[in-house]
Amino acid sequence: MTLPTDPAENLAALIRCASVTPTEGGALTALETMLKPLGFLVDRPVFSEDGTPDIENLYARRSGNGPHLMFAGHTDVVPVGDEAAWTHPPFAAEIANGEMYGRGAVDMKGGIACFIAAMARHVEQNGGPKGSVSLLITGDEEGPAINGTVKLLEWAASRGEKWDASIVGEPTNPDALGDMIKIGRRGSMSGAISVNGRQGHVAYPQLADNPVRGLMSLVDALLHPVFDKGTRDFQPTNLEITSIDVGNPATNVIPAKALATFNIRFNDTWTDETLQAEIHNRLDQAAKRKKYRQGKKTPVDYELVWRDRPSHVFLTRDDKLIETLRGSIKSAVGKEPTLSTSGGTSDARFIKDYCPVVEFGLVGKTMHMVDERVAIADLETLTRIYQRFIEDWFGQG
Amino acid sequence: MTLPTDPAENLAALIRCASVTPTEGGALTALETMLKPLGFLVDRPVFSEDGTPDIENLYARRSGNGPHLMFAGHTDVVPVGDEAAWTHPPFAAEIANGEMYGRGAVDMKGGIACFIAAMARHVEQNGGPKGSVSLLITGDEEGPAINGTVKLLEWAASRGEKWDASIVGEPTNPDALGDMIKIGRRGSMSGAISVNGRQGHVAYPQLADNPVRGLMSLVDALLHPVFDKGTRDFQPTNLEITSIDVGNPATNVIPAKALATFNIRFNDTWTDETLQAEIHNRLDQAAKRKKYRQGKKTPVDYELVWRDRPSHVFLTRDDKLIETLRGSIKSAVGKEPTLSTSGGTSDARFIKDYCPVVEFGLVGKTMHMVDERVAIADLETLTRIYQRFIEDWFGQG
Repeated sequence: MTLPTDPAENLAALIRCASVTPTEGGALTALETMLKPLGFLVDRPVFSEDGTPDIENLYARRSGNGPHLMFAGHTDVVPVGDEAAWTHPPFAAEIANGEMYGRGAVDMKGGIACFIAAMARHVEQNGGPKGSVSLLITGDEEGPAINGTVKLLEWAASRGEKWDASIVGEPTNPDALGDMIKIGRRGSMSGAISVNGRQGHVAYPQLADNPVRGLMSLVDALLHPVFDKGTRDFQPTNLEITSIDVGNPATNVIPAKALATFNIRFNDTWTDETLQAEIHNRLDQAAKRKKYRQGKKTPVDYELVWRDRPSHVFLTRDDKLIETLRGSIKSAVGKEPTLSTSGGTSDARFIKDYCPVVEFGLVGKTMHMVDERVAIADLETLTRIYQRFIEDWFGQG
Repeated sequence: MTLPTDPAENLAALIRCASVTPTEGGALTALETMLKPLGFLVDRPVFSEDGTPDIENLYARRSGNGPHLMFAGHTDVVPVGDEAAWTHPPFAAEIANGEMYGRGAVDMKGGIACFIAAMARHVEQNGGPKGSVSLLITGDEEGPAINGTVKLLEWAASRGEKWDASIVGEPTNPDALGDMIKIGRRGSMSGAISVNGRQGHVAYPQLADNPVRGLMSLVDALLHPVFDKGTRDFQPTNLEITSIDVGNPATNVIPAKALATFNIRFNDTWTDETLQAEIHNRLDQAAKRKKYRQGKKTPVDYELVWRDRPSHVFLTRDDKLIETLRGSIKSAVGKEPTLSTSGGTSDARFIKDYCPVVEFGLVGKTMHMVDERVAIADLETLTRIYQRFIEDWFGQG
């Protein structure tokens, strides 16, 4: 039996499955076909919840006598966008000038293809690691993420699964393979503020209460002063006002209501709770300020509603995991990767509740874009990095 | 022939004409019927302009040997709103508890009805004033005001008409007849500001440029510091932000563009030109400020567009006109009216280019509302005030 040792072949098989969230598209079946010959036991749990599409997921384990390493990722992909604008079709895995084109090439079917190739080479060359290796793969990372990684972790843990470390195969490198390991992520929270004023004619502001004035005071308090200056491991916490909406078309009318929405990306100076308390406190203080209030004596009448679930901030402090990966990368590409906590959120924020987790994968430059593509050379390099990491982490290097 | 000496009868005839802008509804014809027996020559010029409805107007003159007084007003009315909510039908002129109900009762068919009754009594009792009296009545005050007072003044002036003073019969009294003469009005200008930013992901603000931050800086500069502290005759200049609109529904996206609209009511510290220059200067300075800019080095990329025509500020300084009217009011109601420049704009802003103008009419409390109505007693009092004013102004008191 031929083992799936070629990452480009593995990736081509995955790209040809049109697995735009929430469609499985054959991608998990293709994975199952690759994993079984390597000795993995494969489960395909489906999760559902009212109001969301059912989602297929995959959990595969190759058991051994030793520590347990989890590779995590997703086979679902974002939509293709303007299909006519693609140089090569998005689900054809065509190769041109040393690059394979296709949706998911780097985010993140490519990472999965390389990890499977690394495992296959290890099995072929060394009989596979002594410990356990599992793949935790969801079909709901690019969507609402309700029936994906969170439930898959709970499902596996309830069956007694325990992990010692995890790598997420997201494309972490900004420009070149080996640039960056993500060892944590900022937290993220979104909120909506509504200010109630009193409508009136602009010629009689004393009879009205312009909610835009109150909102100015609140928004100013969200933007100043800065929340912190960053920590050793993290960028400064940053808040962005994502929208302000009043919708008043009449030039001679003071409106009745004004809305603002914001998102905040925060570091380990804060928890969800301390940061929400800080924001509530800032808004309450600002609501009493006189600057924008034209002599109005009552505080700004506002409401703050937190949206969605917060994403918790996390930082991985597992030296063995980080240093082993760093060494594997240095030996493959000859340079030291940056340890970073920058960028958006990922499913690592759920995994960190079960075991130490880092993220390392391909180069993200073309992710989510037309003509998403990966250099064949990068697939080979990442496969070597993953193989070296597996060998070193299990102590068989 | 019976002269139109009863203001309630005159008003009832006018209310029964459903003259919602731009419809004449028979109102000007009813006026013509009242004016001709008093010796007025009546013209009914119609003005038109591409993209706006044709508007009927009325100019009536009773010529004499002496100064020329103009009474100005409008017979068009605002829509009735929720007709079912009216206690008495809006075009029936029904009387209940000493009040006549109907759209236009105070704004401002009532003022016209009283002025005609005052003239009729003067004619009946004294043979009419020695000088000239004219009525300049438009059907386009509550609408776009394009084919109304402005063109009617130009039309009359081009025929050689010259006026020595004017009274506009708008409802100037806040609570009780005799409260307030308007001797000027603030100016009004509206503008729209658009800020161009650069869209991006909230996790990477350094790659984007949030236009809401730039807009905060500009809006802050519009609201602070105050433009002035008011003058002897005027309230302080006041600016209101009437809307802010971004329209970004995505909580993880920094938007590309943000818009704000504003209206400013200004006193005689300013002209249109000096105030526009001040606002442009404030915005240019604010665009360079660093406070909200997250280290961005280029100024805020914004555009300011002035909307509509500005309404010029004006203040009437004609002692004879003001003092005569003040005396007439005091003799009728026993109290001194306030001389005010507060409130919105009116057609007086156009008349002031031709002759000194003041505004005095009924009590405005129910104007533009459901159940607009006027006390019959007020109609009688205002008629006596207008009659006394005509007598005194022409020196026949």
